[in-house]
Amino acid sequence: MTTKIIMDTDPGIDDAAALTMAINDPKIDLKLVTTVAGNVTVDKTTINALKIVRFFNQSIPVAGGAEQPLFKDFEDAARIHGESGMPGYDFPTDLPTPLKKTAVEALHDEIMASDEPITLVPTGSYTNIALLFSEYPEVKSHIKEIVAMGGSLSMGNMTSAAEFNVFTDPDAAAIMYKSGVPIVMVGLDITMKALLTHKSIETLPTLNEAGKMLHDIIIHDGDNSDAGIAMHDVNTIFYLLHPEAITTKDMWIDVVTDGAAIGETVGDIRGAYHDGKTNAKVSVDIDSEAFNKWFIEEVRAIKD
Amino acid sequence: MTTKIIMDTDPGIDDAAALTMAINDPKIDLKLVTTVAGNVTVDKTTINALKIVRFFNQSIPVAGGAEQPLFKDFEDAARIHGESGMPGYDFPTDLPTPLKKTAVEALHDEIMASDEPITLVPTGSYTNIALLFSEYPEVKSHIKEIVAMGGSLSMGNMTSAAEFNVFTDPDAAAIMYKSGVPIVMVGLDITMKALLTHKSIETLPTLNEAGKMLHDIIIHDGDNSDAGIAMHDVNTIFYLLHPEAITTKDMWIDVVTDGAAIGETVGDIRGAYHDGKTNAKVSVDIDSEAFNKWFIEEVRAIKD
Amino acid sequence: MTTKIIMDTDPGIDDAAALTMAINDPKIDLKLVTTVAGNVTVDKTTINALKIVRFFNQSIPVAGGAEQPLFKDFEDAARIHGESGMPGYDFPTDLPTPLKKTAVEALHDEIMASDEPITLVPTGSYTNIALLFSEYPEVKSHIKEIVAMGGSLSMGNMTSAAEFNVFTDPDAAAIMYKSGVPIVMVGLDITMKALLTHKSIETLPTLNEAGKMLHDIIIHDGDNSDAGIAMHDVNTIFYLLHPEAITTKDMWIDVVTDGAAIGETVGDIRGAYHDGKTNAKVSVDIDSEAFNKWFIEEVRAIKD
Amino acid sequence: MTTKIIMDTDPGIDDAAALTMAINDPKIDLKLVTTVAGNVTVDKTTINALKIVRFFNQSIPVAGGAEQPLFKDFEDAARIHGESGMPGYDFPTDLPTPLKKTAVEALHDEIMASDEPITLVPTGSYTNIALLFSEYPEVKSHIKEIVAMGGSLSMGNMTSAAEFNVFTDPDAAAIMYKSGVPIVMVGLDITMKALLTHKSIETLPTLNEAGKMLHDIIIHDGDNSDAGIAMHDVNTIFYLLHPEAITTKDMWIDVVTDGAAIGETVGDIRGAYHDGKTNAKVSVDIDSEAFNKWFIEEVRAIKD
Repeated sequence: MTTKIIMDTDPGIDDAAALTMAINDPKIDLKLVTTVAGNVTVDKTTINALKIVRFFNQSIPVAGGAEQPLFKDFEDAARIHGESGMPGYDFPTDLPTPLKKTAVEALHDEIMASDEPITLVPTGSYTNIALLFSEYPEVKSHIKEIVAMGGSLSMGNMTSAAEFNVFTDPDAAAIMYKSGVPIVMVGLDITMKALLTHKSIETLPTLNEAGKMLHDIIIHDGDNSDAGIAMHDVNTIFYLLHPEAITTKDMWIDVVTDGAAIGETVGDIRGAYHDGKTNAKVSVDIDSEAFNKWFIEEVRAIKD
Repeated sequence: MTTKIIMDTDPGIDDAAALTMAINDPKIDLKLVTTVAGNVTVDKTTINALKIVRFFNQSIPVAGGAEQPLFKDFEDAARIHGESGMPGYDFPTDLPTPLKKTAVEALHDEIMASDEPITLVPTGSYTNIALLFSEYPEVKSHIKEIVAMGGSLSMGNMTSAAEFNVFTDPDAAAIMYKSGVPIVMVGLDITMKALLTHKSIETLPTLNEAGKMLHDIIIHDGDNSDAGIAMHDVNTIFYLLHPEAITTKDMWIDVVTDGAAIGETVGDIRGAYHDGKTNAKVSVDIDSEAFNKWFIEEVRAIKD
Repeated sequence: MTTKIIMDTDPGIDDAAALTMAINDPKIDLKLVTTVAGNVTVDKTTINALKIVRFFNQSIPVAGGAEQPLFKDFEDAARIHGESGMPGYDFPTDLPTPLKKTAVEALHDEIMASDEPITLVPTGSYTNIALLFSEYPEVKSHIKEIVAMGGSLSMGNMTSAAEFNVFTDPDAAAIMYKSGVPIVMVGLDITMKALLTHKSIETLPTLNEAGKMLHDIIIHDGDNSDAGIAMHDVNTIFYLLHPEAITTKDMWIDVVTDGAAIGETVGDIRGAYHDGKTNAKVSVDIDSEAFNKWFIEEVRAIKD
Repeated sequence: MTTKIIMDTDPGIDDAAALTMAINDPKIDLKLVTTVAGNVTVDKTTINALKIVRFFNQSIPVAGGAEQPLFKDFEDAARIHGESGMPGYDFPTDLPTPLKKTAVEALHDEIMASDEPITLVPTGSYTNIALLFSEYPEVKSHIKEIVAMGGSLSMGNMTSAAEFNVFTDPDAAAIMYKSGVPIVMVGLDITMKALLTHKSIETLPTLNEAGKMLHDIIIHDGDNSDAGIAMHDVNTIFYLLHPEAITTKDMWIDVVTDGAAIGETVGDIRGAYHDGKTNAKVSVDIDSEAFNKWFIEEVRAIKD
């Protein structure tokens, strides 16, 4: 049985890897890709999404979305992802054309046209999702769940409090977490644990052209440690395929929208402040070895 | 010369009066009416807008919009406007059909199709406007100005800090005030001064059927003092037609989105905290007598 | 019967007038004056308090207090009150010595030593009061009430939201309003109404030397309108002597400690948000004519 | 050479262990103990501090301090530390008498009387410190540094954002971090790493009576994991004696005083938001083995 998903994304190096998995794994049916400003501007994230779709000769529709956060000033992550957002590989230049609709329109149409509830996989800021839920609240009941990269219970990566995706548009995140739609939070608590090791990275180009492409962009990631490189967004796809390798905990998540902790996802870890209510399954642990092994096998299975 | 406007509204008693003026004054060209939850739910505000359009046998399109604020829980004002939002008069029941588009889609299409910049007149919460600017930022440069009822530099009417329209969706107001589009703030500072006197109200039914209709709904307003009844939203149309009767002051307006002052429009009255920058023309005084006189003459001129 | 009071003050022109009334009215027994940074630095407000005490040849003890707000950066009001805080009159230079205690210590000792509950009259920021209540909570039950100049339900004078005394140390104000001690809020809602008219001001020097002194400093006030000059702090003493001339309303007051509305006193005017609880009597109206008349008679009664 | 310190504390199990080390290590000269509400009420923390002083037959003065936070409602940690705050051992009942001064007065007097700058070691909430700095700002220049248990860059223990000491009185923490006095933050980032192992705990009663006492109270700690029990406050004393075993990083720390992240210490980990300024040395890593070894040796050296 396949899982129908829509990815809302801002490629971005790890986003590209997540798209690669979603496009190629037979258990995932990727119906639509929408883009948002984040790692780089939305013009660039849209082109980058199209490049991945074209690389795999797919006809998955891509729709460009929000060019800036709801309220906060836009601040990109080009220091991590490079000026283009996806440097290091010569992609084909004959790219498909994006949809003539906005991301929000495309999300609405795809969700409402689907014969079964769809899984939303946002791996950038949640601006499009927040707009979608506000303008078309009827879509909420047609979404199976949201598996969202973003947030952190532990250390952030912008400040000690805030992770990049939520920091970039905290108001959108607050709206999404308040929506009532089931959410799986895939945050730094696991993505900083499941680093792709340098050994794994070095294996990639030996596998096939997809492996070479991923290797060439991954090594340009600015957040490179001895232990490996975080593949944040890929953890969402890993969760969909191997939920048994990720420990989650039901919890209430509040999003901080101003002040020094802006962009933080605050978890009520003791269940003390929300009358026992929860609004998210929060990923708190991951089998890193299984993640690395899966990552390689997933790429190995791609036919050039 | 006429002014092309779009009204985004939540009728509501004073909204109905504002629509009446906008529909009938020859110097105003009302292109579209969009609705929003506010005084009552959006289902009811849409019906109420259609009732006014039908009452005057107009074919102005009406599009239903946001059913709840971006983030804050919805709290109506039925205690002021009654359960229906517009009680006291038997409107025709053969109402026109609203557009098959959302308010945001209709706003986008109308603004982009116009051959000249349009004036937006929001008299409810600014949820639709915030969504419009976020999803379709290209519309901003096609808007001449926003003349918005809402906010207060002095006393609020929800708390001492906050006026109803901004209180209902403070996040939307914050987005609108940050948009860069020219804004005229028509707040309680003038609308609580330009009360429609009981003498004026008693004159209305003697004028014509429109006057009777306005009289019958106005007397149901729950905010009724010896000095008269505030016609908040009507001040926006009065401003468009008689700017000379309203004193404005350029100022920076911040909108408070949480805490005890939630929903307040804070004006930098001394120009001390924003490097001399301003983002709004704030209405600070009004010729109340001129307002009352104009109100009566405006109704008197309506042909049954 | 006399009312025992302690004034906590930052003279300041209107503070000087309030001290003048408190020192000379036989129904007020002023036991102690403590000072705080505010209109000018605490070194200057202490000297100014000593000047008034010396002018009237009193032996009322004066203790210097907080030199800065609890958390917020200090911002004085020298633009209104001049560099010295009390310009325009040649006071005697042989000033008494302030106490060797801090304001907080002096407040504690005086309150605990009193055989009856004392009335606190803060006319500057509430820094000393907040420290007093935090370090010595036992004093709270020995205070009859606090009659505090500060705050506003309507327009502020720093921003549209905030009045100077509360704006200067909002954290202290929040602590004071949460203390449970009965509070009468004497804010801009009445002090901007009960302006001392220019006719009253011109009468002052014809009365006696005290009138001449008050006249000479009052005319240096930077907030001078055609209608007169606000004697903010004097309204507290007027309230103590003529409560019948001031309308109060029981209400819950929250103090905003950060964001754009920082320093605002938010009143729950509809009693909608605090389960019917109240923490202050808020002055909402005043008989301005009575205030002016009383002011003149109060000064006239002073023996040179 | 010895380090003169004052401990401001709320014993509390780990506080008792920290006091034990501070009292007995010859390189530490403990001049004063002040207490504050926290783990339990201040009445109990004062008695507990006196019990430890009496257990070691010392004459170190103890002064009781703040019974509640500056603004936030008090919430104890009896669920961790038991009703008494220090259960499990029969202490002598002939306790010394606390000083007749408040903690703030005692801190002021001791600091100003010292012939060299003193090190402050707060291991509870910082209420007393905030009051001290606000009422007696002259002490700041007489303090060598503050080595404060509290805060977290990573996971909190009240919410995912907030650690107990800072959560309990965030306003006081904000005042302390803004004071300009050098601060070493000893937070959960190291205290949750340097757990006292069960092997170490089992060794304690074999050493001497002090070891037995510590063992008997430590085993009552409610935060007991397989890996050991956190001795949060003891890390401050370990830092003073073995700074080489703790890695610190200069950073700007903001304290969140309201909203969902209330009580969080937000570190500007990328140095991106405060113009390169720092206000704290933040402990980010610790040699856990060295901590365990030192803990045992420190207790072993105590003469019964």
